[in-house]
Amino acid sequence: MRHFDVAVIGTGPAGQKAAIQAAKLGKRVCIVERENVLGGAAINTGTVPSKALREAVLHLTGVGRRGLFGEMSRVKRNITIADLIYVSQQVIHHELDLIRDHFDRNGIELLWGSARFDDENVLYIDRADDFEVVSAEKIIIATGTRPARPAGVPFDNKTVFTSDELLKLERLPRTMIVVGGGVIGVEYACMLAALGVKVTLVEGRRQVLGFLDNEITEAFQYHMRRVGITLRMGEKVAKIERLTPAAPKVAASAAMIAAAAATSYAPSSDADADYRADGDNAAGKAAGTALHPDTAVSTTANGHDRFHEFAAPNAPLVQATLESGKTLRAEALLYAVGRQGTTSALKLEKANLAYDDRERLKVNANYQTAQPHIYACGDVIGFPALASTAMEQGRLAVCHAFGVPTTSIPELFPYGIYAIPEISMVGKTEDQLTAEGVPYEAGIAQYKELARGQLLGDETGMLKLLIHQQTGQILGVHAIGTGATELIHIGQAVMTLGGTIDYFVNTVFNYPTLAEAYKVAALNGVNKLRHV
Amino acid sequence: MRHFDVAVIGTGPAGQKAAIQAAKLGKRVCIVERENVLGGAAINTGTVPSKALREAVLHLTGVGRRGLFGEMSRVKRNITIADLIYVSQQVIHHELDLIRDHFDRNGIELLWGSARFDDENVLYIDRADDFEVVSAEKIIIATGTRPARPAGVPFDNKTVFTSDELLKLERLPRTMIVVGGGVIGVEYACMLAALGVKVTLVEGRRQVLGFLDNEITEAFQYHMRRVGITLRMGEKVAKIERLTPAAPKVAASAAMIAAAAATSYAPSSDADADYRADGDNAAGKAAGTALHPDTAVSTTANGHDRFHEFAAPNAPLVQATLESGKTLRAEALLYAVGRQGTTSALKLEKANLAYDDRERLKVNANYQTAQPHIYACGDVIGFPALASTAMEQGRLAVCHAFGVPTTSIPELFPYGIYAIPEISMVGKTEDQLTAEGVPYEAGIAQYKELARGQLLGDETGMLKLLIHQQTGQILGVHAIGTGATELIHIGQAVMTLGGTIDYFVNTVFNYPTLAEAYKVAALNGVNKLRHV
Repeated sequence: MRHFDVAVIGTGPAGQKAAIQAAKLGKRVCIVERENVLGGAAINTGTVPSKALREAVLHLTGVGRRGLFGEMSRVKRNITIADLIYVSQQVIHHELDLIRDHFDRNGIELLWGSARFDDENVLYIDRADDFEVVSAEKIIIATGTRPARPAGVPFDNKTVFTSDELLKLERLPRTMIVVGGGVIGVEYACMLAALGVKVTLVEGRRQVLGFLDNEITEAFQYHMRRVGITLRMGEKVAKIERLTPAAPKVAASAAMIAAAAATSYAPSSDADADYRADGDNAAGKAAGTALHPDTAVSTTANGHDRFHEFAAPNAPLVQATLESGKTLRAEALLYAVGRQGTTSALKLEKANLAYDDRERLKVNANYQTAQPHIYACGDVIGFPALASTAMEQGRLAVCHAFGVPTTSIPELFPYGIYAIPEISMVGKTEDQLTAEGVPYEAGIAQYKELARGQLLGDETGMLKLLIHQQTGQILGVHAIGTGATELIHIGQAVMTLGGTIDYFVNTVFNYPTLAEAYKVAALNGVNKLRHV
Repeated sequence: MRHFDVAVIGTGPAGQKAAIQAAKLGKRVCIVERENVLGGAAINTGTVPSKALREAVLHLTGVGRRGLFGEMSRVKRNITIADLIYVSQQVIHHELDLIRDHFDRNGIELLWGSARFDDENVLYIDRADDFEVVSAEKIIIATGTRPARPAGVPFDNKTVFTSDELLKLERLPRTMIVVGGGVIGVEYACMLAALGVKVTLVEGRRQVLGFLDNEITEAFQYHMRRVGITLRMGEKVAKIERLTPAAPKVAASAAMIAAAAATSYAPSSDADADYRADGDNAAGKAAGTALHPDTAVSTTANGHDRFHEFAAPNAPLVQATLESGKTLRAEALLYAVGRQGTTSALKLEKANLAYDDRERLKVNANYQTAQPHIYACGDVIGFPALASTAMEQGRLAVCHAFGVPTTSIPELFPYGIYAIPEISMVGKTEDQLTAEGVPYEAGIAQYKELARGQLLGDETGMLKLLIHQQTGQILGVHAIGTGATELIHIGQAVMTLGGTIDYFVNTVFNYPTLAEAYKVAALNGVNKLRHV
């Protein structure tokens, strides 16, 4: 039995950074991967593939440049899944090489196999034909999550699927129902809409992405509708059924219904957002109880006239019945409600640990589980479940494990949503500040006020600074539009280093840049503050 | 005679911001414009049109995306000047509306006409059919610059022209000589090369853009050569001649020479960079004395074999003879050596002021001329002659004029070069730090190490942090590649607010972003510092 200072379970972002940090501290480290590729969901099924897909969609459709270039923006008229996957595969291979290289250079022992606890310090690594036993002083659980697949949903991975299967589709559907208005649901809904798919998004709450600032969410929902996405908010899905391909006569009618479904009715769903602010909702419930197979299906059929233009070539293959009694039909359904851990395989009970109803682990502020030498980080501990924060959690967990002091300000971690348009934020929202009784003013810049916004043809982007009325302190930065996920880091730096609104007033920005939005927003805020 | 608190001469970026700042202080302001459009060179002939052109070039050619998408990236195969101008015109119109709106909303009196001093406080505003006399307590000279047009250069605005005429060309040449490796020269050289023009850039110094960090310049020159630009460094142009369109027989030979000129020989020039670090060189000299019309023309003709592939359809129309005796021929020549003020029209002598040999004004740190109540700002005072700094100078000049305290740190003004790839910097270069004896370490991130770099297909971008060896203070940030002009502001904020390398080590960045380059570079730097 080999002994390690640290054993890390899972090679996603959290596990990688935990292992690298431990190695840099001179520790003997092993990292365990049960899949036959490194990188976890971030590299293989989630973050990177979806961002690669997004990049391909943006580029090949020219969406976002339409304002200036019109149809001239479209690079390819008939985009295939193969076009989209091409980029993804290149990037994934490169990222895998990078991870492997990092492990090698840092002397991290990579153990292929499925880990399970034997006791609080001993792990079995099971492989198809053998197993290995290792012991470790500290153990980091970074096993991530997978999409929730409730038993009541008839997944077939072709017409009814989760985000994991989306990139394996052979062809793009004409119509699609997306169940769930969390990060994954909205990112894919936007990409598919950009590709010309008629998307209906069903979300149980009144808004998508509930953790965002309300003004940004409203702007975002406005944009989604403008590109043809039908939003069904506050509706829950009662039942999802696959339809057998219809006979010719029936198909005509079904096609019309499908088109109507994708653009008109008011459906409903159990769609609690995944990746949400409270980090504590839904998928468990959705997975277990939210589907009510008994609810009656009402096949409505009005609104046909408007949709004759969408002579869908394929019959609808899936039907979602909402609790409100309405029916949606489409060629495909993406189920994006919640993700759940995969910790049941770890035999946590042998280490006297337990997981919650979504197989996730509870940790304290230092990422320690109930066993102080066993840490958990990344998606497996819940919100915000972003690759960026997972990496930092991995690093912080290891630093804590070996008494290395760190200065990290979790409340200033940024959030990046790679929808179309992209969205990012750092700090507090207006609602949070109001609830906390903090007196603030908002300074706003529209991209269309900026020369760079004009050059990019981004007529809809905006950046908002939330400014303390007395101190001028920056309390939050919220951005939607081109480059939002990059721009947010300027505000983050000023917030972290204690700068005030004066910083943005007095700073020279390159011209023309989107970063000038900070100056425009600051001047707007200062003008409002004068009247306070 | 109307009296104003402030009279601003020129409606470019410096003048605009000076006038707006004065209005915001409650002053009575007039602003004078002698052209029949607002905005100065920035809007009409320089910054904005060239950036609009660049945006159009990037989008329509797909350059920069080639790494991932290959020829799929090309939106249009045959790009016309009309395609390129289209975007430019839209953006210019919008910017003009914005300026007009700002003037109106701030109650700024716009006076059309050509200003000249009558005494130290009185200006004549001359128009075609009348004139007006105004007096002002403070006067801001923001009259900008225009391209230098030395008498020895046979400008015809079609085959031999400055950047002002480039956007009015009816068609793209196949081959072009660019004289001058300053900001304007390199920005246009890169754009034209991306459009498929065979460009030869002639620069009198050993490097283009002399104020940049050496490593960035070398990387940039490498990229320029990779896209087919021939660099002729340390060569001076002795003579420029227009050629009469050749008879058929001659044309064939001339075409070969043209192609050869654009890719092979070692020419030379008086090409001092415009917009340079010392702010004090060249164009005066170039304009006056650098052309030697007597130098012999040697018509060389070797290297033909390599260039038969470029069966240029048009005969060369311009010939540049270098001091080293070599000859370059091309269809067109862009003369981009230096810009000069237009202050001779102001009758500065009536205010007891004088301009230098390039019609520029000397100012102190508060932007005051020799007459303390007369300020000058923007391009007319020389380096760096960027729209961004001009705006800030205008604001600062007015604040000083009325005793309003400001905090502005000119050494932390960023520079943005909109070449392909784009370049930006803030703070010191390695050479400057070495000369000053400051012990530093460099932390470097290559874009190809970043997931976002992979997604964008930017294989060549890089970001460099210069870090004080003892204090960890950030002394300079240098970036080349996608988004460099935006990214630089993150480093600028950290430098201005006194953050150290620890800031970047401890900060969470959105994943995947180019901003992560800061973290990668910081970790690289920290690893190097460990060995110090």
